[in-house]
Amino acid sequence: MKKYVYFFGNNNTEGSSDMKFILGGKGANLAEMSKVGIPVPSGFTISTEVCRDYNLNGGQIPEGLEKQVDEYLKQLEEATGKKFGDDSNPLLVSVRSGAAASMPGMMDTILNLGLNDSVVSRISENTGNPRFAWDSYRRFIQMYGNVVENIEHEKFEHIIDEVKLSKGKKEDTEMSSDDWQEVSNGYKKLFKIEKGYDFPDDAKKQLWGSILAVIGSWNNTRAVTYRQLNRIDETKVFGTAVNVQSMVFGNLGPESGTGVAFTRNPSTGENLPYGEYLMNAQGEDVVAGIRTPKHLDSLKQENEEIYNQLIEIFSILEKHYKDMQDVEFTIENGKLFILQTRSGKRTAPASVKIAVDMVSENLITEKEALLRIEPDKLDQLLHPTLDENAKSQFKVIAKGLPASPGAGVGEVVFDADTAVDWKKQGKKVILVRLETSPEDIAGMNAAVGVLTARGGMTSHAAVVARGMGKCCVSGCESISVSEAKKEMHVGDLVVSEGDLITLDGSTGEVFLGEVPTTDPELSGYFATIMEWSDKYKKLGVRTNADTPKDSQVARDFGAQGIGLCRTEHMFFETDRIFAVRQMIVSDTVDQRKAALEKIFPIQKNDFKELFQIMSGLPVKIRLLDPPLHEFLPKTKEDIKEIADEMEISEEKLTDKIEFLHEFNPMMGHRGCRLGVTYPEIFEMQVRAISEAACEFIKEGNSITPEIMIPLIGEFNELKWLKDRLVPVVEETIKKFGVEMKYEIGTMIEIPRAALTADKIAQEADFFSFGTNDLTQMTYGFSRDDSGKFLNDYIEKKIVAEDPFKSLDIDGVGKLMKMAVDLGRSTKEHLHIGICGEQGGDPATIKFCHEIGLDYVSCSPYRVPIARLSAAQAAIESEE
Amino acid sequence: MKKYVYFFGNNNTEGSSDMKFILGGKGANLAEMSKVGIPVPSGFTISTEVCRDYNLNGGQIPEGLEKQVDEYLKQLEEATGKKFGDDSNPLLVSVRSGAAASMPGMMDTILNLGLNDSVVSRISENTGNPRFAWDSYRRFIQMYGNVVENIEHEKFEHIIDEVKLSKGKKEDTEMSSDDWQEVSNGYKKLFKIEKGYDFPDDAKKQLWGSILAVIGSWNNTRAVTYRQLNRIDETKVFGTAVNVQSMVFGNLGPESGTGVAFTRNPSTGENLPYGEYLMNAQGEDVVAGIRTPKHLDSLKQENEEIYNQLIEIFSILEKHYKDMQDVEFTIENGKLFILQTRSGKRTAPASVKIAVDMVSENLITEKEALLRIEPDKLDQLLHPTLDENAKSQFKVIAKGLPASPGAGVGEVVFDADTAVDWKKQGKKVILVRLETSPEDIAGMNAAVGVLTARGGMTSHAAVVARGMGKCCVSGCESISVSEAKKEMHVGDLVVSEGDLITLDGSTGEVFLGEVPTTDPELSGYFATIMEWSDKYKKLGVRTNADTPKDSQVARDFGAQGIGLCRTEHMFFETDRIFAVRQMIVSDTVDQRKAALEKIFPIQKNDFKELFQIMSGLPVKIRLLDPPLHEFLPKTKEDIKEIADEMEISEEKLTDKIEFLHEFNPMMGHRGCRLGVTYPEIFEMQVRAISEAACEFIKEGNSITPEIMIPLIGEFNELKWLKDRLVPVVEETIKKFGVEMKYEIGTMIEIPRAALTADKIAQEADFFSFGTNDLTQMTYGFSRDDSGKFLNDYIEKKIVAEDPFKSLDIDGVGKLMKMAVDLGRSTKEHLHIGICGEQGGDPATIKFCHEIGLDYVSCSPYRVPIARLSAAQAAIESEE
Repeated sequence: MKKYVYFFGNNNTEGSSDMKFILGGKGANLAEMSKVGIPVPSGFTISTEVCRDYNLNGGQIPEGLEKQVDEYLKQLEEATGKKFGDDSNPLLVSVRSGAAASMPGMMDTILNLGLNDSVVSRISENTGNPRFAWDSYRRFIQMYGNVVENIEHEKFEHIIDEVKLSKGKKEDTEMSSDDWQEVSNGYKKLFKIEKGYDFPDDAKKQLWGSILAVIGSWNNTRAVTYRQLNRIDETKVFGTAVNVQSMVFGNLGPESGTGVAFTRNPSTGENLPYGEYLMNAQGEDVVAGIRTPKHLDSLKQENEEIYNQLIEIFSILEKHYKDMQDVEFTIENGKLFILQTRSGKRTAPASVKIAVDMVSENLITEKEALLRIEPDKLDQLLHPTLDENAKSQFKVIAKGLPASPGAGVGEVVFDADTAVDWKKQGKKVILVRLETSPEDIAGMNAAVGVLTARGGMTSHAAVVARGMGKCCVSGCESISVSEAKKEMHVGDLVVSEGDLITLDGSTGEVFLGEVPTTDPELSGYFATIMEWSDKYKKLGVRTNADTPKDSQVARDFGAQGIGLCRTEHMFFETDRIFAVRQMIVSDTVDQRKAALEKIFPIQKNDFKELFQIMSGLPVKIRLLDPPLHEFLPKTKEDIKEIADEMEISEEKLTDKIEFLHEFNPMMGHRGCRLGVTYPEIFEMQVRAISEAACEFIKEGNSITPEIMIPLIGEFNELKWLKDRLVPVVEETIKKFGVEMKYEIGTMIEIPRAALTADKIAQEADFFSFGTNDLTQMTYGFSRDDSGKFLNDYIEKKIVAEDPFKSLDIDGVGKLMKMAVDLGRSTKEHLHIGICGEQGGDPATIKFCHEIGLDYVSCSPYRVPIARLSAAQAAIESEE
Repeated sequence: MKKYVYFFGNNNTEGSSDMKFILGGKGANLAEMSKVGIPVPSGFTISTEVCRDYNLNGGQIPEGLEKQVDEYLKQLEEATGKKFGDDSNPLLVSVRSGAAASMPGMMDTILNLGLNDSVVSRISENTGNPRFAWDSYRRFIQMYGNVVENIEHEKFEHIIDEVKLSKGKKEDTEMSSDDWQEVSNGYKKLFKIEKGYDFPDDAKKQLWGSILAVIGSWNNTRAVTYRQLNRIDETKVFGTAVNVQSMVFGNLGPESGTGVAFTRNPSTGENLPYGEYLMNAQGEDVVAGIRTPKHLDSLKQENEEIYNQLIEIFSILEKHYKDMQDVEFTIENGKLFILQTRSGKRTAPASVKIAVDMVSENLITEKEALLRIEPDKLDQLLHPTLDENAKSQFKVIAKGLPASPGAGVGEVVFDADTAVDWKKQGKKVILVRLETSPEDIAGMNAAVGVLTARGGMTSHAAVVARGMGKCCVSGCESISVSEAKKEMHVGDLVVSEGDLITLDGSTGEVFLGEVPTTDPELSGYFATIMEWSDKYKKLGVRTNADTPKDSQVARDFGAQGIGLCRTEHMFFETDRIFAVRQMIVSDTVDQRKAALEKIFPIQKNDFKELFQIMSGLPVKIRLLDPPLHEFLPKTKEDIKEIADEMEISEEKLTDKIEFLHEFNPMMGHRGCRLGVTYPEIFEMQVRAISEAACEFIKEGNSITPEIMIPLIGEFNELKWLKDRLVPVVEETIKKFGVEMKYEIGTMIEIPRAALTADKIAQEADFFSFGTNDLTQMTYGFSRDDSGKFLNDYIEKKIVAEDPFKSLDIDGVGKLMKMAVDLGRSTKEHLHIGICGEQGGDPATIKFCHEIGLDYVSCSPYRVPIARLSAAQAAIESEE
């Protein structure tokens, strides 16, 4: 007869972790634990083949199964010393589903199976805890009635409500043993009314009802849809297993207890077990906080044998799972059981320390250590954070999007100028805006944090703040900002200029008052992880940086050059915006050239500063990208002021602004299109780059400028511009009489550029994926507007994640892969990188590694994250 | 010895049209003509192999060539009875380049070769026309000096200027024989100064100088670049041939003459030769208009033999080239020569009549007839046009883009309301706007033509006007419109409300006053062409139509259903816009549903009307697409008026407008994204479609509604919406108790939809390419803004054509092909069409045929064009 059932526990385990397809994930895991000597409560697993055969045979269980279950039930009784359905020493069991693939939506569970009126009375006596007994009983009836017999959950809840009403009680915790008994009786009456027969007292009947319900649940609509949506291969995952496991209780007397422990300190990473327990209690009691649990150390005094056994188990678990474990245990009448073990959640510093320690302990290899750390968590190590203990004492007045991590405490200001002024006076300020624009850059730089009412995770505020390593909460829709009145409203609360608030950029929380913060410490452990990352990664890691400050931070964090320097941010600086505006309102090419001449020396100096910081490394500079109207004033007052300053009429300035207005500026007159209309702008920029580089080289240094042309969608755009720009570089090289390597290449950020990348590669020395714009155009999502529907999309599971945060691999990724393949079909060694926001996202970095990019570029504070992610990608693809 | 030279003419032709790669295009064509008995002036062609060998051998001509040329020169002398370099009966020749591929930029030509001082005197005597002789001579020196010896053109011009100055003359026509002689002498002096030697008197020297210059021109920079840019395959097209041809003159006396003729009437298509000639004259004399040429009929009287010979030649030419020909001829001393023949340009009616006639005459097949007609020209037949003769008497005050063909004469109005009012009063009006918006629809409908200062060929005004078959001139930037003052300025001219103007939508011209027009006539010839088109085409042709009127026009033009009905235009109609706005400002779902209930019966009726007109055919209806803010008022006055009407505060309305404002509405909250946020809107529309269709079917008719969901970029969007919309249709079918076929499918207009089309096809019954949006996003060009740089792009040859007019096959086309292949990999018989503006463009239609679409859909007035284009595509792909 075919074997359908597998035992686990009590040194008699038949399965193992490699039998996942037969035992399901849960069953295989229980078998594995018990095989390496962990005392799990005994039980048996009915194989997934039963489920398959049941469905193939129209709801018939295979012949002989009943007999096998009977035998294993007997074996389980022997292992536990208890008897199923017997009221003197009753064996209670749980029945759980578990397929080879995780299917969280359909996992049915029935606990405390085996209870009936006489068993519950006996347990009540045995434990001296009738409330527990009756509460368990009523829970069992409810679970069984709902899962096995399809009685609506609400009907059971109505009965509880009735009893509470009649007793004048509100919370479950107020309910007495008698109350739960009354509820149990009510449940049984409900069962009879709904089904026409009594709730089964017979344990075997209960068991088979539950087994068949679990097997049947494999084909309910919810489960079928889930498998379709998640493309679960039903030729391998053909059914669910059923796990029948003995229940253990920590509240059977003073020799019983329950606890939760980490094998190392999850907060600091220190290699000492860390946990809490309670004697004569259930897991729920620990959680509910009615009694205060004791620290694990006390167990050593209280029961050294159990303590030592537990410590021994911790060591086995760590050796087996090669990671710090979070363990649930129960002591039943002096016998220790492990109910669950899983990798323990930990803080960022702990994750780094544990990984490094485990390598020293020869528990894991360097590669394994790197794979153990969640790259995103490193962020916590790089910014000041709020003191977790102090935090709870402050009021959260609003919650927005966690746009840029770190903590910020300061006085509220509502405009950039005030931010700059107050900073000069030595104050710390938080800049609060409806949304930010490039004109706010100086103010953002002066502030310790930024709060905006509008805009998503990739809004201007968010992107710039992350670039600056400054904390930011964006899209905080519950606040209404009046920039004119210099106040913000949150419900009835009014926060005025100068009031103190605190931002938590890692959670999006906004606090009233000054929450204490703790400073980051880039410990030796962190440095070790970075060193190992560089050892294994294949991708280069560069940074997106526009200023000397950002560049320095990035280089300190290990950036291998600049992957994107946006020159437009330079245009906004106060010492040149006037000339920029003059350039824009020029009527003739000569006027425009004259204005550009004023900007030239300043730009040249900008670049020279960057080259100094990045000496010896490549620096990729993108020529002017945004539409010109972004540089012009917007409000009536500003127009008047600037017109006066420029000595032109307000009308002329207004006309120019109106002329430059665009319906869809994202797809308008910008990037290389500006370069084609006004080649003199790009020529000035290229001259500034070339002269700065040549001068720097002449001074005895080394630098490779890479000139990047934005928004190319068509080969001829690149060709036309290169025909004008290459001579500018060549003339400069000749003028300075130096040798200089340089590259001229293009952003790939327009879908058409990706589609025609073979042609474009003919003229490009490199490609750099601008995945912000590429995502916008591939999806047709405007970053500035998608906030209105994107959250709704995520909620309705239409998209899994914000594609501006983590690359959309199915769509945008497909275009990128196409561009890489087409580009390299023309030039085998074409340099290719990414400089969109997603370049710092671990999943995106993995994809970039897979499709063969040369490097990723990200904001300075994400450089360490990218280094680790790149190492993980390389290690994973080796495997 | 290898044969390098080929004779043509005088019944002694050695080449033919299939020797193009050896003789070049021009040489092969001359050989072909003379082979079929056309008397072309005799000559010989030096093969392209000479050019190749010359370049391979470092500028050495192949051995024996000189001898061959000498022999052929002798043969030419015999054929013409003249002698090269002899001054008693001099043979003059032309020397022309000509490669196998057309290279218009490098075609060097030298005429009148063989002239020198003594020859020119003799010709002067022989012709009795010394002015002609000396003018010919000075032209020859100039051409030779420039082409063979590289003397700058300007230097020759300076000499003419000097002579004119000294004689007090201004125009070339004022110059006498003596003047030209003086110029010739000056030219020869210039030649000596520049080159250090005399201008060659010897004809053989002149000939070899010219031959080598033509051969050498193959490798000049201009030619090399041209071949690279046009990807000319140099393994096949390896050099230029040199054509040496005897010159003939129509001004040698009363027995000489020259003329131009069409083999049929190019204006009406009537099968009668149509032309003009002058005796004792040169071609230039006919063109210059100094003497009035005679009609061809007079030649019959004047010289019946020549006339009959000419008519015979016309017949040979038509039989040979199978098309109406435009022929240049010269009579030299009673002998007829054909200098050139080519397909003759003709009006649209002529092209249709000629094609049909030639089939009756068994000259060409139906398929050939269809290929002979330029589809775009049919447009001329479908709209009233300006009377070409009268047109020239009116002043063109401005010129914009020819956005929608046809003629429009009317009184100027500057707003939609006035247009509607004046129309009611029986006036014809031209609506002039800065640009139009959906609110102008009623006004556009009332007007006979539309003129806008802004916007391109695919602006709102242009698209809507083409859809309405109404003439439109858009982007007329030289006019400035003051809608407030109700006047427009063009330079100093002020045009006020009520002034008469005329638009020519086929040329973009704007006339002051009332230019007479002629009405279109859809003759039997036109109907025949349409019948044949339907016989051969494989693609279906549907129409984009939103109104009963458009639908009726389209059906009359042969549309096989509706490919795109845009429901948003219906939302703007005055009887429902109020409810639409109520719906938009609703605070709750219930309020919104209440407003939608008011729109429902009107929408249902809209659809029923369309179904009636399209009875028996499929009707594809797109659910609401534009962002909601488009329906709200924009100006302060309108906001006040509408707020009052709706009984809400202006603040509330303003707040709503501000909330809905978008930075990039094209990529904002629209299309299916609205459907996900407000499913009740789509549900109402689908209910209206279903009820209208079911009711119509119940009344005994047949219709297949196709429900199209716009802006899908992700499978889950379609799935989510279908889960809500299919039940609405099914319930309606049940309610009416009818059988109804219907389809639910999607636009493919987001690049991501094309990239993931295999997935999307799982849930789609059809795809329809929205190539307007697809082009916008693939190129990153906003249609509303690209006017600012697209003209510049076309001028600088960065793009060849406006991609919104004719599909960008390299980029957008690649995505479309990908979507077709991916979609059909999931569903083999997936229905696929196109409904973008480009769907009516012949080149696009050809591409759609090639990638296997089922149908194209275009504006009603382009349906006949599409039918013909589809037939041409099918016929061409057969070949």
